[in-house]
Amino acid sequence: MIAVIDRQCSLRAKAEVVRFVEGVGLRVQVSETETESLLAIIGSPPADLADRLEAMPAVQEVRRDSPPYALVSREHRPEPSRVRVGNVQIGGNEIVVIAGPCAVESRDGLLEAARAVVDGGGALLRGGAFKPRTSPYSFQGLGEAGLAMLAEAREITGLAVVTEVVAPEDVELVASYADMLQIGARNMHNYRLLSAVGEQSKPVLLKRGLMATIEELLLAAEYVLSAGNPRLILCERGIRTFERATRNTLDICAVPLLKEATHLPVLVDPSHAAGRRELVPALARAGIAAGADGLIVEMHPDPDRAFSDGRQSLTPAGFKSMMDGLEAISEAMGRKLLRPQS
Amino acid sequence: MIAVIDRQCSLRAKAEVVRFVEGVGLRVQVSETETESLLAIIGSPPADLADRLEAMPAVQEVRRDSPPYALVSREHRPEPSRVRVGNVQIGGNEIVVIAGPCAVESRDGLLEAARAVVDGGGALLRGGAFKPRTSPYSFQGLGEAGLAMLAEAREITGLAVVTEVVAPEDVELVASYADMLQIGARNMHNYRLLSAVGEQSKPVLLKRGLMATIEELLLAAEYVLSAGNPRLILCERGIRTFERATRNTLDICAVPLLKEATHLPVLVDPSHAAGRRELVPALARAGIAAGADGLIVEMHPDPDRAFSDGRQSLTPAGFKSMMDGLEAISEAMGRKLLRPQS
Amino acid sequence: MIAVIDRQCSLRAKAEVVRFVEGVGLRVQVSETETESLLAIIGSPPADLADRLEAMPAVQEVRRDSPPYALVSREHRPEPSRVRVGNVQIGGNEIVVIAGPCAVESRDGLLEAARAVVDGGGALLRGGAFKPRTSPYSFQGLGEAGLAMLAEAREITGLAVVTEVVAPEDVELVASYADMLQIGARNMHNYRLLSAVGEQSKPVLLKRGLMATIEELLLAAEYVLSAGNPRLILCERGIRTFERATRNTLDICAVPLLKEATHLPVLVDPSHAAGRRELVPALARAGIAAGADGLIVEMHPDPDRAFSDGRQSLTPAGFKSMMDGLEAISEAMGRKLLRPQS
Amino acid sequence: MIAVIDRQCSLRAKAEVVRFVEGVGLRVQVSETETESLLAIIGSPPADLADRLEAMPAVQEVRRDSPPYALVSREHRPEPSRVRVGNVQIGGNEIVVIAGPCAVESRDGLLEAARAVVDGGGALLRGGAFKPRTSPYSFQGLGEAGLAMLAEAREITGLAVVTEVVAPEDVELVASYADMLQIGARNMHNYRLLSAVGEQSKPVLLKRGLMATIEELLLAAEYVLSAGNPRLILCERGIRTFERATRNTLDICAVPLLKEATHLPVLVDPSHAAGRRELVPALARAGIAAGADGLIVEMHPDPDRAFSDGRQSLTPAGFKSMMDGLEAISEAMGRKLLRPQS
Repeated sequence: MIAVIDRQCSLRAKAEVVRFVEGVGLRVQVSETETESLLAIIGSPPADLADRLEAMPAVQEVRRDSPPYALVSREHRPEPSRVRVGNVQIGGNEIVVIAGPCAVESRDGLLEAARAVVDGGGALLRGGAFKPRTSPYSFQGLGEAGLAMLAEAREITGLAVVTEVVAPEDVELVASYADMLQIGARNMHNYRLLSAVGEQSKPVLLKRGLMATIEELLLAAEYVLSAGNPRLILCERGIRTFERATRNTLDICAVPLLKEATHLPVLVDPSHAAGRRELVPALARAGIAAGADGLIVEMHPDPDRAFSDGRQSLTPAGFKSMMDGLEAISEAMGRKLLRPQS
Repeated sequence: MIAVIDRQCSLRAKAEVVRFVEGVGLRVQVSETETESLLAIIGSPPADLADRLEAMPAVQEVRRDSPPYALVSREHRPEPSRVRVGNVQIGGNEIVVIAGPCAVESRDGLLEAARAVVDGGGALLRGGAFKPRTSPYSFQGLGEAGLAMLAEAREITGLAVVTEVVAPEDVELVASYADMLQIGARNMHNYRLLSAVGEQSKPVLLKRGLMATIEELLLAAEYVLSAGNPRLILCERGIRTFERATRNTLDICAVPLLKEATHLPVLVDPSHAAGRRELVPALARAGIAAGADGLIVEMHPDPDRAFSDGRQSLTPAGFKSMMDGLEAISEAMGRKLLRPQS
Repeated sequence: MIAVIDRQCSLRAKAEVVRFVEGVGLRVQVSETETESLLAIIGSPPADLADRLEAMPAVQEVRRDSPPYALVSREHRPEPSRVRVGNVQIGGNEIVVIAGPCAVESRDGLLEAARAVVDGGGALLRGGAFKPRTSPYSFQGLGEAGLAMLAEAREITGLAVVTEVVAPEDVELVASYADMLQIGARNMHNYRLLSAVGEQSKPVLLKRGLMATIEELLLAAEYVLSAGNPRLILCERGIRTFERATRNTLDICAVPLLKEATHLPVLVDPSHAAGRRELVPALARAGIAAGADGLIVEMHPDPDRAFSDGRQSLTPAGFKSMMDGLEAISEAMGRKLLRPQS
Repeated sequence: MIAVIDRQCSLRAKAEVVRFVEGVGLRVQVSETETESLLAIIGSPPADLADRLEAMPAVQEVRRDSPPYALVSREHRPEPSRVRVGNVQIGGNEIVVIAGPCAVESRDGLLEAARAVVDGGGALLRGGAFKPRTSPYSFQGLGEAGLAMLAEAREITGLAVVTEVVAPEDVELVASYADMLQIGARNMHNYRLLSAVGEQSKPVLLKRGLMATIEELLLAAEYVLSAGNPRLILCERGIRTFERATRNTLDICAVPLLKEATHLPVLVDPSHAAGRRELVPALARAGIAAGADGLIVEMHPDPDRAFSDGRQSLTPAGFKSMMDGLEAISEAMGRKLLRPQS
């Protein structure tokens, strides 16, 4: 539920509305447009709240049928949010590409990958230190040692780093090394983890679950924002369907749907969708043409020897070539491909 | 199975290979590259055929693991096929857009739609005269009267027309009016119908079934080509998944997968995928960025009064605006948006 | 839309209602319960029809929100329909099992299969003479020769036969040999074919499309009934999902849903769902426990040499053993497994 | 990988094999059959391990292509496992039914529900104190207060209790109250949580993720067993598909597939699959007929006022009636429905 107040209205009158809402045990978050203050009511409002709010003189209108994800909705914040990660801004006019290996496997391999990201013109470095794996016997990541390698790679290349966190008890540790925390597809429904990353201040990259509807993704995002962290970026990475020719089915329409529903930036992960590197550039182009604010792709210096996801990882040369192909598409969208160091 | 023969090889030697294959009850179709003649063996070969072919001096190589859809495969015909419909060529460098109402509803409405296609720069007119409808009580199309209206619209506007055929016994009738026959998603598995359109000479537009794999689509295409008609165009139009925010899920990755597997042109239908007109332009752009040769979209002069699919039909103004947005994307792909009359 | 008339109401008053409906271009089908005459209005009623019907003295009530599949609905015919095929009644208290090979492959093989059906206690013989196959190069069935073999097998064993029809132009031919016509999953959306089997009088077995919702199946059934043929049986045979451990996913809940929505008998096909013979007995038991009126299973005298579907075909011994296991389940459901000749 | 040793082989020779495996950094778990000791190798074996094991005299055979879920596989433990929860054994000849409300809402409501479970003949009480909810604003459960109510209900009724745990840091707390810990569908991929419940000794009920393959479920189970806890029960609860008539699609074939692949007991949850209480008894019967060892169902004293899942919760009378109907089906399967107190 969103209550609309004239922006000219006195501070005192506004404060009265907020106090009233808090008095019934709910919270309020305010977003300002040029002419209005939009108060998102956070929590489960009692049945008569809308009527009582509408009766207050400061309240112009109560939007009762606003979506259940008030804070992430465009209705609450009509302007697009921009999220800064290191020196890079996501959600503005520039198209941002995050690249790197699926997992951090070794110091040297990671540095080689990071340099290839720089060469190709990637803006941020990805790499997993904690890996959620289907089998308990698969490589589960290097843990804190991997985080330290990511930090060193940042030191050397200047690239800010994005890495996954898989459990609430690891959030503080991962946040102490990383510039952005990633919630992987398998954890999109892990609400305790969503709350934990919402209670700290580093930006968060939230991937859509492979079985999650778009509404469920937006509600998962609401967990993060309602816990206090507005620095959130969403990512479409393919859903599970009957089609077996690709690893997942990239739901390209999720991009315009999300951009319509929410002010949060939206990325596309073509690698996990395709499952095969040859298909990645076409999906990357499609993602940007559909309106995405950037991409996250897997790239490995030697994909055939990767511990995981080698089949879908670009080579450094393939990455560079893909980036070259994205320049014109970005411009056709009236945007610019950010290539910081190339 | 594909047998490779040196192009320099004597005609007599080639003919001997063909006779041999025909002698065991199979058929052969030949495609020429610069250096090779590629003989696709049509039918179910006996177990020892490959060995016996390889023993023939004229045969350089037998590709035993070529895909089960020999005629539509790139292995048989490495160069992309171009299909001419009226004056328009599909599959070349130009991006071709087919537009028009879901169903032909009236003479005046169709002419108004056709003029809007011309104004927006569409290259071909679509419109259904035979409609496969989920309910027996829904509008089933105007039948031959609708076909005649399409022919009149072509007369007046110069646009070649595409329309659906739903049963083998209608093929001759529909082909006598239309420039291209469409096989709808619900009929992709209607093998008798596929054979029937394969036995006539008008070009065919084959839509992917809403729960058909890409391999099944290619095998459906093989029905048409093996019946004798090489003038076939494929169309990705969205598959059925758990996601309910869109009518179907556009499988954008089908585009690069199909372009890799087959020489046939590939279109995207953003309207049936989206189910909502607001989403159509983003999907249209994504389709071209993914490598499609064109689009087929629903457009209606007055979508709210359409007998069917109004929710997903563009207005004439929306169509024009979408077309304007496609110019730059087409150029970014190194191609050109064909806008014949605008 | 269904109009309710008191059964005691004069014939003249009833006829007046029917005449009125027919006067606006619609048709009426009447079903009698103990106390009421239920008039299903067939076609697309004008907006004011319900009001005008309600104003007629004979009409007690108009059910405006009856389902779009009026004729197949329980609202129109509250009592379950029973459909006679040969000497066997489907939809009554007895559980009926149809068995036989996927395709008719040879006279001797079919007779051997038919005898195994008799031995195991099957009530009807299945076998395809026209096979819809994914590839144009796969065995497409023996056609009329296969139909003649089925007729001979009936002659010899006394089993009535069920076989598939794939195109409207074959309906007359197939009906001249078979006791029941089957519409396969790939043709559930082939509305012209549905109308064609609806216009003849042999009973019809309609399989759910592998991508069809339950509502779409009921609307496909309505095509058959509205064309004049009430002798229809529905069949759940598995839908396509992401799970790859089985050929399809048997939607077991379709059984109670269909029994709730329609008066038509409902069968389960465990063979196409499982795709592997070891799983067939468990699915067969589940089908009956969920309320199905019977089963249709694939059984082959020598499954490893079957031209198609061998992996999912029971052996004769496996069929007999499955039948033995179904006796107790049928009794637990208060029903009886029909084993005519064993 | 599973190494087979003759049971008659000397202890010393056996110990040598175990030491050898542990020497390369892996672990071993032994299961005994009448004639063999089956050593499951836990972890990622080096490439030459199988050869080296086969060279040891004590080793009869190395099964290299045993499934990746060695501990849960039938190959490792051919006999079915039985898991005791309170006084009830699951996985033996008796069919066990767990029932209760979706969430613990109040002390009185829970006690009323528990008494209805006893009356209907349920063997165990379910109820959620920690609820994973799609929206952050939905009722998230009573937490520890809810756990205390469950313990009190057990005290009063004698029913052992099953309740969900949603985060590793809660495992100790939940285990201190509950008789069995449930991992919900949304957490099936939460590998840290799986390890945490594997490291304690209370039995665990693991539900299949709503878009998890059967192989992924078995690998999730392997996380629990490889962490040390063999007391695990699996549960099929419906998967997400395109069909919208039910909340999920019960994958009934998962039951025989799981019983074939693993020694672990298998339950069916008809409530979450159906999403509508009218359909629950049919699915419950189908589950038992397919070979399940029991059921977990939602039942609420006053479903229309339930905080969650009311639509799919049985009433106490409905529960009793369902139980009555399950007696005959259980007997038809050669088993017995456990109804401890009724």
